[in-house]
Amino acid sequence: MSEVVQRARSAEAKQARESMILSAARALAVQRGVRGVSLTDIAATIGMHKSALLRYFETREQIFLRLSAVEWREWTDEVCSATADAEHGTPAQTAQILAATLAARPLFCDLLAHTPLNLERNVSVDSVRAFKTATLQQVDLLAGELHRTLGLTRQQALDTVATATGMAGALWHMATPGDAVRTLYACELQGAVVELEPQLTRILEALLTGSGAHPTT
Amino acid sequence: MSEVVQRARSAEAKQARESMILSAARALAVQRGVRGVSLTDIAATIGMHKSALLRYFETREQIFLRLSAVEWREWTDEVCSATADAEHGTPAQTAQILAATLAARPLFCDLLAHTPLNLERNVSVDSVRAFKTATLQQVDLLAGELHRTLGLTRQQALDTVATATGMAGALWHMATPGDAVRTLYACELQGAVVELEPQLTRILEALLTGSGAHPTT
Repeated sequence: MSEVVQRARSAEAKQARESMILSAARALAVQRGVRGVSLTDIAATIGMHKSALLRYFETREQIFLRLSAVEWREWTDEVCSATADAEHGTPAQTAQILAATLAARPLFCDLLAHTPLNLERNVSVDSVRAFKTATLQQVDLLAGELHRTLGLTRQQALDTVATATGMAGALWHMATPGDAVRTLYACELQGAVVELEPQLTRILEALLTGSGAHPTT
Repeated sequence: MSEVVQRARSAEAKQARESMILSAARALAVQRGVRGVSLTDIAATIGMHKSALLRYFETREQIFLRLSAVEWREWTDEVCSATADAEHGTPAQTAQILAATLAARPLFCDLLAHTPLNLERNVSVDSVRAFKTATLQQVDLLAGELHRTLGLTRQQALDTVATATGMAGALWHMATPGDAVRTLYACELQGAVVELEPQLTRILEALLTGSGAHPTT
């Protein structure tokens, strides 16, 4: 067997292992939240030893950053397909698209809140570079769409993406509380329950309206 | 010594201990961030055994929730004193007051991001009730001021407080990254650096403008 074929096979095998690890991490995080998933849990799910898993990923945080990069790309694609057909947008329509597509991605919302707090803090500079570079490309695509359909300046568009993703992370966690808060809401504080999609839609609509969003001519 | 005096003295001693623990936790969190402070660290700082500390607080999370409640009260006081003199506000003034007072409270920003993710998840229902009740009172005071000075509806005012505090938490963590991100920003991605106060001011001004904020007559 030639060295080239061997190398290709081993690269393929490596990629297959990485995919398996990422799938396991995703399934566990969907089930019990990013917060509740350790490297040991991921390794156990796929019957791999933790030390073997560490040949593919630096840390648990790097695994979740990789999942987060995938979510950023898929979310951006979804937003851009939803806005692609319209020549012009309105603040209400655009707010609805951003909020609905985020609310439909609970794992992404969970990851968005964990990214600056935890995920970007326990990885190498190389991993952060790969993540930031990939994410900033998606942010650029989104900012371009907001400029094209609503006439936002670049700064206004970046502020909108920051608010959409920052508030999606914060509100999703408030809307998906732990046991103590859940008990309290059920028994005493029904009025304090947070609902992600309607609140995020209202906030983004007001933000876009106040940014002077108007269909470009 | 009468039983009443004894009880009073022991209640006083208990309160003194609690204050000491809270001060130590605050000092450590200011120094190294909420994320980096364990119960063992707090106990070590005041020369108390961890098991002794657990007679005063349930968990590390309860300690930080108590600090967060204090920050909410102090921040609300500060905002309300800044707006008290004005009969009417403008979106720009109000956004500036909210953003500047938040940016001046790094510990509060840090705690705001940790609250729904971590702090409200490892405490009893009683502790969450005490925290939520205290916080909702402050939110009510702020919403009242936003209604009085800008004519916002209650829902708009609550959305504004949620955005101010949610984005303060998210942006503060982005603006105060870990070593890997800091290195990356310094060497390659200067343009991606987040600055809390100007960005939060712009977002809140657009939000308030788009909420149709107008001086009440």
